[in-house]
Amino acid sequence: MNQRDDVNKRKADHIQICLNDDVNGIGITTGFEQFSFIHQALPDLDFTEINVETFFLEKKVATPFLISSMTGGTEKAMTINQNLAIAAEEKGWSFGVGSGRAAVEDPERAYTFRIRKYAPSIPIIANVGAVQLNYGFGVDECKKIVDLVEADALVLHLNSLQELIQPEGNTNFRGLFQKIEELCKSFHLPIGVKEVGWGINSELAGRLFDVGISFIDVAGAGGTNWSQVEKLRSTDPLKRAVADAISGLGIPTSECLLDIKQNEGTGTLIASGGLGNGVEAAKAIALGADLAGFGRSILAEAVTSEKALIERFTQTEFELKAAMFSIGAASINELKNTSYIKRVRY
Amino acid sequence: MNQRDDVNKRKADHIQICLNDDVNGIGITTGFEQFSFIHQALPDLDFTEINVETFFLEKKVATPFLISSMTGGTEKAMTINQNLAIAAEEKGWSFGVGSGRAAVEDPERAYTFRIRKYAPSIPIIANVGAVQLNYGFGVDECKKIVDLVEADALVLHLNSLQELIQPEGNTNFRGLFQKIEELCKSFHLPIGVKEVGWGINSELAGRLFDVGISFIDVAGAGGTNWSQVEKLRSTDPLKRAVADAISGLGIPTSECLLDIKQNEGTGTLIASGGLGNGVEAAKAIALGADLAGFGRSILAEAVTSEKALIERFTQTEFELKAAMFSIGAASINELKNTSYIKRVRY
Amino acid sequence: MNQRDDVNKRKADHIQICLNDDVNGIGITTGFEQFSFIHQALPDLDFTEINVETFFLEKKVATPFLISSMTGGTEKAMTINQNLAIAAEEKGWSFGVGSGRAAVEDPERAYTFRIRKYAPSIPIIANVGAVQLNYGFGVDECKKIVDLVEADALVLHLNSLQELIQPEGNTNFRGLFQKIEELCKSFHLPIGVKEVGWGINSELAGRLFDVGISFIDVAGAGGTNWSQVEKLRSTDPLKRAVADAISGLGIPTSECLLDIKQNEGTGTLIASGGLGNGVEAAKAIALGADLAGFGRSILAEAVTSEKALIERFTQTEFELKAAMFSIGAASINELKNTSYIKRVRY
Amino acid sequence: MNQRDDVNKRKADHIQICLNDDVNGIGITTGFEQFSFIHQALPDLDFTEINVETFFLEKKVATPFLISSMTGGTEKAMTINQNLAIAAEEKGWSFGVGSGRAAVEDPERAYTFRIRKYAPSIPIIANVGAVQLNYGFGVDECKKIVDLVEADALVLHLNSLQELIQPEGNTNFRGLFQKIEELCKSFHLPIGVKEVGWGINSELAGRLFDVGISFIDVAGAGGTNWSQVEKLRSTDPLKRAVADAISGLGIPTSECLLDIKQNEGTGTLIASGGLGNGVEAAKAIALGADLAGFGRSILAEAVTSEKALIERFTQTEFELKAAMFSIGAASINELKNTSYIKRVRY
Ligand SMILES: Cc1cc2nc3c(=O)[nH]c(=O)nc-3n(C[C@H](O)[C@H](O)[C@H](O)COP(=O)(O)O)c2cc1C
Ligand SMILES: Cc1cc2nc3c(=O)[nH]c(=O)nc-3n(C[C@H](O)[C@H](O)[C@H](O)COP(=O)(O)O)c2cc1C
Ligand SMILES: Cc1cc2nc3c(=O)[nH]c(=O)nc-3n(C[C@H](O)[C@H](O)[C@H](O)COP(=O)(O)O)c2cc1C
Ligand SMILES: Cc1cc2nc3c(=O)[nH]c(=O)nc-3n(C[C@H](O)[C@H](O)[C@H](O)COP(=O)(O)O)c2cc1C
Repeated sequence: MNQRDDVNKRKADHIQICLNDDVNGIGITTGFEQFSFIHQALPDLDFTEINVETFFLEKKVATPFLISSMTGGTEKAMTINQNLAIAAEEKGWSFGVGSGRAAVEDPERAYTFRIRKYAPSIPIIANVGAVQLNYGFGVDECKKIVDLVEADALVLHLNSLQELIQPEGNTNFRGLFQKIEELCKSFHLPIGVKEVGWGINSELAGRLFDVGISFIDVAGAGGTNWSQVEKLRSTDPLKRAVADAISGLGIPTSECLLDIKQNEGTGTLIASGGLGNGVEAAKAIALGADLAGFGRSILAEAVTSEKALIERFTQTEFELKAAMFSIGAASINELKNTSYIKRVRY
Repeated sequence: MNQRDDVNKRKADHIQICLNDDVNGIGITTGFEQFSFIHQALPDLDFTEINVETFFLEKKVATPFLISSMTGGTEKAMTINQNLAIAAEEKGWSFGVGSGRAAVEDPERAYTFRIRKYAPSIPIIANVGAVQLNYGFGVDECKKIVDLVEADALVLHLNSLQELIQPEGNTNFRGLFQKIEELCKSFHLPIGVKEVGWGINSELAGRLFDVGISFIDVAGAGGTNWSQVEKLRSTDPLKRAVADAISGLGIPTSECLLDIKQNEGTGTLIASGGLGNGVEAAKAIALGADLAGFGRSILAEAVTSEKALIERFTQTEFELKAAMFSIGAASINELKNTSYIKRVRY
Repeated sequence: MNQRDDVNKRKADHIQICLNDDVNGIGITTGFEQFSFIHQALPDLDFTEINVETFFLEKKVATPFLISSMTGGTEKAMTINQNLAIAAEEKGWSFGVGSGRAAVEDPERAYTFRIRKYAPSIPIIANVGAVQLNYGFGVDECKKIVDLVEADALVLHLNSLQELIQPEGNTNFRGLFQKIEELCKSFHLPIGVKEVGWGINSELAGRLFDVGISFIDVAGAGGTNWSQVEKLRSTDPLKRAVADAISGLGIPTSECLLDIKQNEGTGTLIASGGLGNGVEAAKAIALGADLAGFGRSILAEAVTSEKALIERFTQTEFELKAAMFSIGAASINELKNTSYIKRVRY
Repeated sequence: MNQRDDVNKRKADHIQICLNDDVNGIGITTGFEQFSFIHQALPDLDFTEINVETFFLEKKVATPFLISSMTGGTEKAMTINQNLAIAAEEKGWSFGVGSGRAAVEDPERAYTFRIRKYAPSIPIIANVGAVQLNYGFGVDECKKIVDLVEADALVLHLNSLQELIQPEGNTNFRGLFQKIEELCKSFHLPIGVKEVGWGINSELAGRLFDVGISFIDVAGAGGTNWSQVEKLRSTDPLKRAVADAISGLGIPTSECLLDIKQNEGTGTLIASGGLGNGVEAAKAIALGADLAGFGRSILAEAVTSEKALIERFTQTEFELKAAMFSIGAASINELKNTSYIKRVRY
């Protein structure tokens, strides 16, 4: 197989595995089940007035939901991205596309990222692995990626433990912080940083905001576990053997939020990692997030059709509003500042 | 189907579903299992002297038990109400009838609420959804309802999340607090407020007592979950899909009591929501309630016969007294003020 | 059936049910599983030197173990008592016989209590329900009982919740404390007080020690649940129905000890209720008990033969010594004063 | 059977039982599952630079891993020891051999300990039961053992509860502390002390370091339970019966570390007892250990071949480094001093 086929295969594998296999971490959850809303039996509210609009990347969006960066590069990814784009535009979700590295390395793949036409108004975020800054990527490559996507921002993903198990993994993270800082200073668009399922804690979030990162997506533990995904792709007996031992690593998504909330943020905070429904999204926002991101849990619909996705998005929004109705919050701002949530388990 | 048939169908569905299906919340309990009585091995007490009389709505009642508002309006409801009334009179339970809205809207249904003849001495409480005050109901309609029932009081139920999933739901709760306050001031009978399974917390209870509400029934989470019930009735795929995500919302019944107890009440406090036996009722009273209400857990007997109900009521009273014997409490007042209860789990 | 047959039947039922049925409380344990010894890897100790002798009722005994009051009155009880007496004498256990009430009421049964000849040296404790002091029993009857058994002491059992479910139950406990006090003052032998599986807390223990009771056996919850036993005997549907609801009542045995330990005792403290082996007995002593009592868990051996009992007693003693070896305690006194135990769960 | 056959049989039994049977303690774990690393999403680190070298017994070793003392004396033990030695030398593990007592008592067995030729550079530790100092062993016998093994140190094992259940057990531990102190003063090589699965707490560790012991291996509870192993070998019904009751004794491995860490050590601390992979080893080091020891969990590979062992050792090292990569620790020293670990459960 040449390199292009390799990458195609990897992308296809990721989707197949995420759709069909058990790729949860072992002995670890998001922690949202430990929090309960304090129901307000007499909300001073007409349910139909509940407004979940918010702002992201200087655009007004109908919902505080984000499609977590997932795919691109292959024919199937094109279909998925198109479905996602149409549904996101229709329902007012922000949209993170998958890593654009393949498209830079092989321009024939570029078309799979040209989804702005399907989603003219919503924030779209281009994506690339931060570690690529240590493997030949710089401002120019990043610019190619955002241009291709006609993106509003670029998000760099941190995925050390995925690279570790991934057959083709790049594991030199030394000096990356400085490179991120420089990119941030010279780039023409806002830059965000996300994990892919092991979480970001307050110390790192603080340092990143300090050097000009405009949003952090914690992408914490409790959802898709990428060392498990890569294990299922690997033929290396060592890496396969290792994956289970490390499958409990990572910071639960709710822990990331609690930790970061204490050091009141200077930028936008996105909660993702293991979110499955709108009530969990509501908890994430009540614990400090500005937006809530969904990855693997919407993949089945994304593969199916834009219609399936639109139904799912409608459901998620309804669930969020139901939780808001329960505590009498009329807007995302009220939800974010509610005192009607508390820890009930440890 | 015309509107009358609709309502008939809804009432019948509620009863069938509550009798046959699993309609508990998911991942939530009343919390009473977290509390234990501190047994007093040498009670200075003759069991036969234990007296569970109390006062409710200025009437002396033989027990501190309340039949939670359930039904009315259909032929089957009539049978249930008659059984309940006879057993309540016989065993000294207070009796909350189901919502009288249907009877006001369709006078042919009124007869199903005429149960005062079967229960001349006990407190009877008429019932209507508070949200109806936003949908055309006022003092006159409320008066019709209490007159029909020859009630000692009217209780307004708060059921925001039920209305949300209910096919015919009314979800405008805006401004209701003021309307409740006004009704309270102009009405000739005492007014109470209850939830239907999501609980009332101390803040709201305090505000309601302050404007003249004379009793609060917390109707907390851990028992019947009305979004689950409505899910089973619904044909709307969106609402069906949403119900599970929201099935963990609500404040556990014991939490409501603990919360309210701290702000020593100015009115009567009723504990309900998931009560299954007299020992749980005893815990509820020891945690601050004046009365303990039973809904779905007595429905099977209510459908069967007055005899089955009387046996069940006798059993519940015996269980309450057994718990009182265990801690040496001779009266409801002693039970309410006992220090022989403590939290043993979290 | 005449009254004698009744009592015979009751005694036989108790034994059969305790041997064959599940009569544990529901949702309640002794709590000993929440405590761990802090192992001392280098005990300054020869295992063979570990000495578990102690004093009870002014007699030196080879072990701190007590056979909890169980039976008497029937032919089968006679066999059990004889086995227990022989094994107790052989292995140095103290021996509580079952209630002597039947023997007083029907002298033909008296022979089943004449076991002193099989156990000349050990402490033997006669037993009667405290509540009988409200039903015709006084100093004379108590004297008859202890004489018959040639006992070193009399223990009064408190069993309010058993009497409640027991078909022939006596449930007037009013004024009993004063009667116990008087008996204590006028009686020629030491008087103890025990529960039968619901526990005694520090407040009551303190009051009893203050009026001259010389030992308390907490007989706490987590072992045999006597309302469950009586449920299985009962034909009264009400009592049968009630038993499950009350089956979680009672204070766990370890909780009784912790509670009483704080108010440093003025008399002997016996831990019983759900003890199954010598390690649990060691924990009980480390938590403050002077002796550890075994009821139902030795019943199978008691019914089988003195040989089976002697083996079981030898095993229990070995287990106790193993726990002592683990923490380097050479004597019961050292075990009682050890700091090498701690709570590890809640 | 003569004595030699006896010992042969015991050694063979231990291996067979440890390979085939469930010999875990009951109701007790190492506690490592209660601790989580705080993931650092942006480690300033190239994975390939992570260095896990450390020093032990004045030798530089490639890993902080130790093969826990296991076997010797039989033909099969010879194979195991040879495999272990070759793999240890190859992968830079330190190597504790099994008890040398048999070799001293029967010189024909000595050859099974002559494994220095397969492992010329790594630390090798000879082993004997501390209790043998009370049964005829002194400086001379210890010298014979270390000479035979060409060891860098001698470790004395404390195994009171194993001796108790072991058919041929020696249970006089009196005065051992002084004898250990004397041996320590007069011996030409460093002396360590280990348990075999019940743990060592800070008080004893401190006393041992104070008299010159140079390393402590806590060998805590949560892994192999030696009273269970001995139970399966025993034909004595008493000892078999007792084993289950005592199978929850011992201090969990993580508890030993936490306890000892507070009294900052004066010597080398080894964590063992129930370790199964490199992530647990990483936790052990982050909680204060210098080295991490593996016993039964590597036995299957040890019996199979040096190749299987080398693969397993490679895997364990990779797992350790993965955990270090997760928290950005580049060296064992950084891991030991990390603040990125916290208790998440109790
Ligand atoms: C099929 C698939 C492909 C993904 N590809 C990328 C990617 O290219 N870039 C990225 O930053 N994250 C990628 N992710 C990670 C997600 O953005 C997300 O952080 C992670 O899956 C955890 O969220 P979840 O538990 O909701 O799935 C991918 C996830 C999935 C399921
Ligand atoms: C069949 C049924 C019908 C009910 N109808 C009413 C009603 O008309 N008005 C009302 O306030 N509550 C109604 N409820 C709610 C109950 O009063 C109660 O608050 C709720 O079921 C929680 O208590 P439980 O867990 O004991 O069932 C109904 C409950 C049942 C089971
Ligand atoms: C068969 C049987 C008969 C008993 N009879 C008596 C009795 O006559 N008097 C008494 O004080 N307790 C009696 N008990 C209660 C025990 O003394 C003990 O307090 C109780 O069973 C709890 O201990 P356990 O969990 O170890 O069984 C009896 C127990 C059993 C199992
Ligand atoms: C087969 C086998 C033989 C052992 N023999 C010895 C021994 O001779 N000396 C010793 O100190 N420990 C011996 N041990 C105990 C181990 O060193 C270790 O402390 C114990 O098994 C707990 O660690 P683990 O849970 O990793 O197995 C032996 C363990 C095994 C599995």
